[in-house]
This record gives sequence, structure tokens and C-alpha cells, in this order.
Amino acid sequence: MDNRPIGIFDSGLGGLTVVKEVMKQLKNESIIYFGDTARVPYGNKSKATITKFSAQIIRFLLTKNVKAVIIACNTVNSNCALELHELFPDLIIEGVVRPGVTMAIRETKNGRIGVIGTEGTIKSGRYTALLKENHPEYVIYSKACPLFVPLVEDGWINSDVTKMVIAKYLKDLLSKNIDTLILGCTHYPILCNDIQEVVGERIKLINPANETAHKMGMRLLNENMQSTTSPTYQFYVSDQKAHMQDMASMFLGYSASNVIEVDIENY
Amino acid sequence: MDNRPIGIFDSGLGGLTVVKEVMKQLKNESIIYFGDTARVPYGNKSKATITKFSAQIIRFLLTKNVKAVIIACNTVNSNCALELHELFPDLIIEGVVRPGVTMAIRETKNGRIGVIGTEGTIKSGRYTALLKENHPEYVIYSKACPLFVPLVEDGWINSDVTKMVIAKYLKDLLSKNIDTLILGCTHYPILCNDIQEVVGERIKLINPANETAHKMGMRLLNENMQSTTSPTYQFYVSDQKAHMQDMASMFLGYSASNVIEVDIENY
Repeated sequence: MDNRPIGIFDSGLGGLTVVKEVMKQLKNESIIYFGDTARVPYGNKSKATITKFSAQIIRFLLTKNVKAVIIACNTVNSNCALELHELFPDLIIEGVVRPGVTMAIRETKNGRIGVIGTEGTIKSGRYTALLKENHPEYVIYSKACPLFVPLVEDGWINSDVTKMVIAKYLKDLLSKNIDTLILGCTHYPILCNDIQEVVGERIKLINPANETAHKMGMRLLNENMQSTTSPTYQFYVSDQKAHMQDMASMFLGYSASNVIEVDIENY
Repeated sequence: MDNRPIGIFDSGLGGLTVVKEVMKQLKNESIIYFGDTARVPYGNKSKATITKFSAQIIRFLLTKNVKAVIIACNTVNSNCALELHELFPDLIIEGVVRPGVTMAIRETKNGRIGVIGTEGTIKSGRYTALLKENHPEYVIYSKACPLFVPLVEDGWINSDVTKMVIAKYLKDLLSKNIDTLILGCTHYPILCNDIQEVVGERIKLINPANETAHKMGMRLLNENMQSTTSPTYQFYVSDQKAHMQDMASMFLGYSASNVIEVDIENY
């Protein structure tokens, strides 16, 4: 047993959709969340910058005595998971991309899969590479959807504008007979009803958070590092803690009153 | 005479709309531009964070021997112009907010003025305070339009989606009989045709960049600090220099081949 917390981080607050799954599936695990709200978004930033920011965050989480880290940001995962494993070789690090790939392989019937995410995630080609590594016969179509994050953050859920934007972004994908669509950004599950309405019920939407929480649980079980106590949840951001409190209810269905601001550039 | 360059900075690339006006009006002045593309946007960040980032940028510009600085970011101007004047008391610093106010006062007939900008600009109340300081009888209506920047940056110019978003944001403003609308964000002039179409020809749109360039020119003239040489233009960003090159043509109508990346956190 190991009662230390799990660290979970994201460029901003989207990673709270992953926190939600971890809370649901791993009921004894404490969580330290960090959202880099001073430098969000990462989706349009370079690999070097994203690696530097992420390493600062992991160093911060280590000062909070975390036993493992979940990278709840598809952009970070897709671009610099390997670099972060090299920088922190003794730390258990799980991401959201491989779990998303696992789920998509489990769900697809026809091997035609769509992937949507930020510019940084799509340009990295990481989802496509991992899917093809397992199944070279698969056909993968991917599309960056840079407006989805601001639409979510400005509250345009269940709106005609959002559905028009979704339809425009996904027009090409939908002509390719895909049966599975990976939501490769932690904000996108908030739009899942709108997306499902546009793409139709025939296409299965994949939220990698589910499998991510499950995989972390299995990893802790295998390493005999599960927690046995009542969990605690502590939230850190690099800016705008009041905004985090507002957004937590949307992403998390949980009122996060204990939010602390951190000057992350010092780590 | 003083042939040193003018420094112009913005959270990202929107400030290039100000660069464009300075190039047009002050034909002998050299320019050093800095866009903080590693930490963009500022519009949803706190005053403390924006002040810290802006001070780093001005320190960087001073290493480039600038004779004056234009804060081409409404969010910075609205939130921390006073703090920056205090931090750099001997530097000539001009912003875009006061020039925007000057233009609106010149244009309005009925004293009913709208202001649109980022969350940070609108929450600061700076435009409203300066307009009321000059004309307490004016009635000011303001509205944050957080989707405009991502719409511009993702290229949704002259699109139905953008017009629907504009109409939704401006619905209340348009019921107030305003005759003047201040575009209180450097990205918004890129959408001016779409905005004009939605609000109608009766409402005068104000782009503060015009008066900002004029005011800087007058200031240099008064201080006998005008340049007399052929100008040079040098562009710096904190990330994604290729993207800057792509965007420069949209914002500037100018191909910026000489872009250099800077690690701004070190300043």
C-alpha cells in the first residue's frame, strides 16, 4: 500500500474530466491536480516549449510527494511523453493517448477511425502512429479542431454555433465511413452530446479518460501501491483560481474550494 | 533626431495590426516587435500575471535599445499601464486605450458608445472609466467577446459562424442605440467587415491603432526624437516562429522573414 497522492496535470482545466474518472474508479486515491492556467493553451505551442512547461509541472508535483503522475493533456502526451519519461525515469507516468488507442481498438469494427484534437496533438501524428503500430491495416483520419476549447470555455455547449463548427470541422471525416472517433483533447467530452448529434449514433465516441483511470488503477495494483485511506483532493493552478472554482463544477461536478495559486516558472 | 527603433509588443500576433499603422504613418521609424506566443492569450489571465509578463517583455525590448514602447495589447493597457509606467519611469510608453477613447469621443454624436474586448479588458472597466472621466454624461455599454480571437486565429473570417457569434455577443449592445463601437482588441480589426455587416453602417467602428500611431508620431516630434533613416523591421516571438510568418501576411500584409525566438522567461 502507498497512501501518497496521484498527481494529475493539464495545460488548463480540461484535465478535470480525467480527475472525474479517477475519482469515480479509484475511490481511495488522493489527487493533487495542477492546471497551468497562466500559460494555457498548449495546443498551438511548440514541442520544446511544451516539454519545458511540463517538466516544471512534474517537478512541482514531486514536491507534493506524488507516487505517480497522469499527464491529462493530449498535447503534452502526443509531443513529449518520451522526453518526460527520460527526464523522470523512476516516476510512474501514465498518459491519455495509449488508453485512448486501446479503447478505439476495442470498439472499432471496420478499422476506420477518426481522431480529433488540438493542432499540437494532430500535427504530432501520435494517435495515428500508435494505432498503426498495433494494426497496420487500419485507416486513420485526423483533424485539428482549434475552436472546440474556446467554445467549451466560453460555455457554448448545446448551441447552433457549436454544431455548425463541429459539422464544418468533421465534414471530411464523416465522408470516410469511420465507425469510431477518438476525442483526443480533455475538453471535448464536455461537447460529446453536440458531437454525437452531428456525427450520428452509428459512430462510437471514445473518451480516453475512462481507460486512463482504469490503467492507473491496474498499475498501482500490480506495484502494490494502492491507497487504503479516505482520499483528499487538492487543486493548484498557475493563475485565476476563482475561474478554476467556476469551471470545476462544469468539468467535475464538484465544488473545488481548496484551490491554491503557484508560480510555476520557479520550478 | 533619434534613429533608435520603437518597441511594440502584444500577447501574440494581434499587435501586428498596430505595427501596420505605425509602418503606414511613421515611415522612417524602425520597429522591434515582440509577440508572446508561448503564453498567449493574456485576455483571461490575472492582473499580476499580465504585469509580470509585460515587464519581462519591456526589459527584453530595452536590451534592443528601443527609444519608446507601444503596448499594442488592450488587455495589458487596461490592466497594468500604471504599473508599467511606475516600473519604467524614464521610458516613453504609449498604449492603445487612450487613443481609442480619443477617437470615440471625436466620432460619437449621441454619446452612446459600445466597447468590446477580451474578458480582461472588459472586466478592468478601463475604457468606460476613461470615457466617463472626459464625458460623465456618456452612456457606455461593454461586452467581452472571448471567441473572436480564436475565430481570427483559425481563419473564420467572412463566415456564417463568425457572423452568428458576433450577432449573439452584440445583441444587447445593439438594442441600446449606440452610434460608436470601440474594437478594444488588436485582433478585432481583422473581423471589421463581418462586424460592420452585423451591426449595420449606422454604427462607426473604432480601430484604436490609427490614433495610436498618430499619437506616437506627435510624441516623437515634440521630443525631437524622430528617426531620419530608412526603417528596419525586426520581429521576435517566444514560440512558433513559423506560425508568426504565416500570420504576418494576414495581420500585416507583409512577409516577415526575419523572425527570432526568445526565451522571454529569462528577462
